[in-house]
Amino acid sequence: MSFALDGRLAKDTLAIGDLQLSRVLLMNDARWPWLILVPRREGAAELTDLEAGDRALLIEEAASAARFLKAHTGALKINLGALGNVVRQLHLHVIARSPGDPAWPGPVWGQGAALPYDETEARALIAAARRGLGI
Amino acid sequence: MSFALDGRLAKDTLAIGDLQLSRVLLMNDARWPWLILVPRREGAAELTDLEAGDRALLIEEAASAARFLKAHTGALKINLGALGNVVRQLHLHVIARSPGDPAWPGPVWGQGAALPYDETEARALIAAARRGLGI
Repeated sequence: MSFALDGRLAKDTLAIGDLQLSRVLLMNDARWPWLILVPRREGAAELTDLEAGDRALLIEEAASAARFLKAHTGALKINLGALGNVVRQLHLHVIARSPGDPAWPGPVWGQGAALPYDETEARALIAAARRGLGI
Repeated sequence: MSFALDGRLAKDTLAIGDLQLSRVLLMNDARWPWLILVPRREGAAELTDLEAGDRALLIEEAASAARFLKAHTGALKINLGALGNVVRQLHLHVIARSPGDPAWPGPVWGQGAALPYDETEARALIAAARRGLGI
């Protein structure tokens, strides 16, 4: 089935590329290094909407994203979340967290306004993510 | 290796039982039907600390927990999260969410004080979860 990225996800992010299952996005918020994985399965909103094989792919892709973020940023902790209360399309947040970041130790969602990247910074992070994820 | 549940997780929850990989806990907060899966792997803090086989098990156990919560509560959306900024032991939240709940549509973490279950309500939910999860 065809896949179309949710409009709000598209608006809030910069494209990194596609893994086997998921489209990988960079949240355009320089406060936290923050990737989003969106399984390219039309109509999926819950984990239980995916086949088991896709779930196994998703968690491996999440582990790859976590590994990249931790190595690239030196973050203390990776936060994972799939909420979807506002944007229904299934998407998994993978976020690099460290003491002293603007929401530590609370969750990042709903914390003030995003701080967009400047173009040079975004390009460098996207290039590093592509190398780290083998995209 | 031996597995010991983190003391804070133990204090905040009621025990449901063990799946193949994870200990399943009920968050003792009647505001949201809220399960926590804790992989019984000593020292695991990040998803990347698990072997790939355990990651595949974890996401299947998360799907089972989500399926149970959705069927049992009629929730509109399941929220998944693995934060671990405060409690380092790897643990995955699986939470039933619906419009009108006390934090909707924001995340539940850090939202005021927990409202403990009364004993009858907790027993009924634990029994239903055991049936739903085949524990």
